[in-house]
Parts: sequence; structure tokens; C-alpha cells
Amino acid sequence: MSLPKSIKLYEVGPREGFQIEDGPVSTEDKVQFVNKLNHTGLSSIEVTSFVSPKWVPKMADAEKVLNRIERKSNVSYRAVYLNIKGLKRALRNNVKVDGDLLLSSSNTFSKKNTNKDIEETLQNIPNWIEVYQNSGINVNQLSLMTAFGCNYEGNITLSQSLNVLRKAKEIAEINNQTITKIKLADTMGWANPEQIKRTVYTIKEEWSDIDILLHLHDTRGLGIANAYAALEEGVKDFETAVGGLGGCPFAAIKGAAGNIATEDLAFMCEEMGIDTGLDLKELLNCTQVVEKIVGHKLPAHLKSGGILSNIRKYTWAMQES
Amino acid sequence: MSLPKSIKLYEVGPREGFQIEDGPVSTEDKVQFVNKLNHTGLSSIEVTSFVSPKWVPKMADAEKVLNRIERKSNVSYRAVYLNIKGLKRALRNNVKVDGDLLLSSSNTFSKKNTNKDIEETLQNIPNWIEVYQNSGINVNQLSLMTAFGCNYEGNITLSQSLNVLRKAKEIAEINNQTITKIKLADTMGWANPEQIKRTVYTIKEEWSDIDILLHLHDTRGLGIANAYAALEEGVKDFETAVGGLGGCPFAAIKGAAGNIATEDLAFMCEEMGIDTGLDLKELLNCTQVVEKIVGHKLPAHLKSGGILSNIRKYTWAMQES
Repeated sequence: MSLPKSIKLYEVGPREGFQIEDGPVSTEDKVQFVNKLNHTGLSSIEVTSFVSPKWVPKMADAEKVLNRIERKSNVSYRAVYLNIKGLKRALRNNVKVDGDLLLSSSNTFSKKNTNKDIEETLQNIPNWIEVYQNSGINVNQLSLMTAFGCNYEGNITLSQSLNVLRKAKEIAEINNQTITKIKLADTMGWANPEQIKRTVYTIKEEWSDIDILLHLHDTRGLGIANAYAALEEGVKDFETAVGGLGGCPFAAIKGAAGNIATEDLAFMCEEMGIDTGLDLKELLNCTQVVEKIVGHKLPAHLKSGGILSNIRKYTWAMQES
Repeated sequence: MSLPKSIKLYEVGPREGFQIEDGPVSTEDKVQFVNKLNHTGLSSIEVTSFVSPKWVPKMADAEKVLNRIERKSNVSYRAVYLNIKGLKRALRNNVKVDGDLLLSSSNTFSKKNTNKDIEETLQNIPNWIEVYQNSGINVNQLSLMTAFGCNYEGNITLSQSLNVLRKAKEIAEINNQTITKIKLADTMGWANPEQIKRTVYTIKEEWSDIDILLHLHDTRGLGIANAYAALEEGVKDFETAVGGLGGCPFAAIKGAAGNIATEDLAFMCEEMGIDTGLDLKELLNCTQVVEKIVGHKLPAHLKSGGILSNIRKYTWAMQES
């Protein structure tokens, strides 16, 4: 399969990044970061989470942040929610709500993340569909967390993941919903490139009309290699975070790298002739801003290595003079 | 092409790593690090450089280090040399000397690194062969630096690289030497995965009997993805550095990441069923030792993410109890 001509990156830094930081992040800083991201060419920004302020106090200002950010007409502003209460908050707060069903391949992680095991999650799908439909939203996406492995349960087989997806898809269809997109999250950084290929290939083999979106973590240094393997299988949608912000609060590992960095993946794509629609220089400006906000260096690479297109311009100028 | 069943990693950390560090590294620390590397399963360790102590004072203790390290019978201890004077020192000092010709695809870098441009380097090949042959060593390897791009000259085309390789190979053959191995170095971190594939494929197409060894840098975060692309093209030999030590002193960029990390590449391979013969736990011990020696954190990932085979054992034990 040849590489896609263009891809889309869904920025999750403001949500996933700030959620995991040790220090406090002010509402003002969050707003400033999103406003800065507006200038990069990104067309989707996950701004915050509608989760319990008791469990995740860092996201207690979700409504405030969404009220204060500048909004560009060509950018979708998204938010995370883990239960129906959160979905209802999202529906009230002017964010782009996808008709998404949240699932997990790991029973233990499912309980820790949403307080429901896999079976309870599946049984609850009709309730989610009802709330979505009451707001005129069709359910079209399944999001599968810990799709490639879990620090609590160890290996997650492809069969386990397919099993959850098949059941959820069936329940959605019984309730007159058509699934067109599957998000696979390597929540704890277990995936390797061959596993990514095998998984994407098998899902596309079973459901050829489905688009796959990948959420990859760079926990063990394989994040960008995993993204490359996915590109080779034709995947066009990736969730990423500027600077490599983020991580998983329930992953039981401290100090590991977060999401794959928006600028590093965008850089790789641009170098290989894949259009991202993104301005690398503006992305690096965002990394600079957010490193100041969180008060430490982030793991992304491009900021130290530098953008090659700039060096090319410089060397061409040298050779012509 | 299917992935190789096993690969070999050539450790270059002690040489390339210590060369670029700001602070001093004592002879004792260098010896300690190499002795630690002896326990990892590595079968090749590049210990030091025979370069001018005037230009690279950090390597002035080359002979001392080589005299003091413990030597294991199944490990080759190697060293770098950039001119014939250096080669002669290597030949006197009990290191594994490959019949290697050092080349560069970039004229500017060639001059900065060896004080000779490409043409002068090619003309000098018969002199190198003579010195090797006087010590009973056949020349069988070409090493091409800046093979994928150069901060001084910008893009390096595949034709430019092939041109240098063809000329050098021809001169070697006129002088009765048979080239069986080509080392390609992404000295300044310019390569992307598609470029790696194209380059490896084209070289193998032209010379099917040649083995390719890759020396990759993680300057812009694509190092492990580049290694994966190379594995997909059947490459079995990689130079790497524990912890991601290293960099290039003439690369004109400060603060960029160094070599791809031995443990991160070994981890990826083991996860994909490719045998490396390496003990990941011992490699992480080496990273710990060398981080203490250099006094700062190194960019490798596995140390923070943790080895998955350990987590698997733990989760299996939990499930069985």
C-alpha cells in the first residue's frame, strides 16, 4: 500500500497534557495555549475534559476555558468525557461532539478509567446512543483504549480487541447507528510497528469501509515508528500532542513520555511528501509556549534538531551567493 | 521483504558519546562503562578514537583506555580513525581493525571532518589500501558519512551518494580489494523512513551481494522509525549507542539528540520477534551507569517506560495467583 497523500492530526495536548502535569496550570495559561494552537493550521483541538472535579481537579475549569478561548471557524474544539454526565456537560458547552462510544480492551483498565468493566460498558451503549440521539447526533465512532497492551493485564491480543469492537458495533447497529470510524489508543505504549500493521490490516479486512484513527504514546520510544507503520497501512488520522505532552494517569508508570509529538510526526510526513496542512514553525512556537507553562522540557525532538526546510533555504542561499 | 530473524547492534556509545559531552570524562569512568557493556551480550564495542589530541583532547587517553578495559573473547573492541596516522595507531593497539574506507557524500563535511574533500579522499584510497595490506588486512567496507543530508550543503541526493560509492568501489577493485559491506551514516539526522528504504533498495539493486550497516541519529525524532524502515528492507546491522549517547561535533547543532539508543532499538526488535542477543535489563544498567558518568539524563526511552517482558511476567503471576 502506498503512503497517503495527506493526513490530519487531531491535537490533544491541552487536554491530555495538562491533565497529567504535576504542577497547577492556570485557566489563563490553558486559554493562551489554545489561542496559540489556532495559528498552526490544526483543524481539531481537544481543549479539556468533562470529568469529575473531585477526581481530576485540574479539569474543574473546563467550562471557563471553553468560554474564554478564541474560536476560529475552521477549527473544531473538542473535549473528553468518560460517562453520560460528562457527555451532557459537553453538549451544553459548545464543543464539537462526535458520536463516539468509549471502550477498552482491558477489563481492569476499563474499571479504573470509567468505573465500568467491559460487559457493563457494552450494556450501557443504548443509553449513550439515546443521549446522543436526543441531541441529533448519530453514533459513528468506536474508541478502543489499551488496544495493544495493558500494564495491568499484560498482552492484549488482536482477538480480544476485535471481540470488543464486534460486540459494540453490533449493538450500535441494532440501535440503527452506522459505525464509520474506529479509534485505537495505545494508552500505555505497548504497541510495536508490526502489531500496528497487523491490527490495522485485520480491521480493514473485516470492515473495509472503516476509517482508523490512531492515538499513540511514545512511552518506550516506538511512537513515531508506530505512526510510520500505520501510514504504510494507509492510516490518515492521528491524535498527537504538541511537544509530546501527556501520558496516562492510570498507566501506573511515572516519568514515561506522553503522546507522540505533533511537530515530530508532522515533520516526518512533510519530509516524505505527505501534506499535513501544518506550519512547523508555528508548532515549535507552541512547544516553546507550553514548555514555559509546564515549567520543564518536553520530549519532542524537532525543537532541538531544527526544521530541515529552513536549513535547506539557508544552504541554497549560500550556494547561490 | 520480511523482517530479518536476527540483527546485530554495534555499540558506539563510549566513542561517539564521550566525544561530544561538554564535561570531562575520566579514563576510569570510560573503562568502567566498557566493562559494564561487556555484560549485555553486545559483540562489538567501539571504545575510543585515534584522533589528534590537539583537536579532540577528550580522546587523548585512547591507548590508556584500551589497555585497561577487561576483554571478553566473544566481543570485538573497535576504534575510530580519520586518517592514516590514526589507522597506524589503531593497528598498534589491539583493536579489531576493519578494512574500511571512510567517505562522505558532502564535500564541505568531508573537509571539516578529515581535512580532505571528496576528490582528495578518493585519490588517497590506494594509500589506505597499502597500509591495511601491510598489516594483512583486506579492504572490504565503504563507510559513507552524511549519506542522507548535510547541515552545510542541504539535501544530499541518492545519486550523489551512489556516485561516491561507485568511484570508491572501483578504485578498491582496481587495487584487488572486494567490497562486501557498505556503512551509511545519517551523520546529521536528515533521513526519513522512505529515504532509507529508497536508498537501501537502490544499493541492493545495484550490488546484490553487499551487506548494509546503518548509523542513525535521532536528531529530529525519526531515528527508530528509520531503523524500522531499514529492517523492512532487510538491513541486519546497526550502530547504536546506549542511552542515546552521542551526536556529531561538526553538525553545527547544539542540544540535538545523539545516536539511536541501543536499548530502544533492541526493545523494538525483541517485541517484533527479531533476535538481538542482548539483555535489555543489563543495557538499562549501562544507561544508569553512563547517566551518572555524564551527569545528565540521556534521551533513550526504555528506562522510563520499562521493559514489557517484565510487566508481562508480573501480570501473568497476578492472574495465576
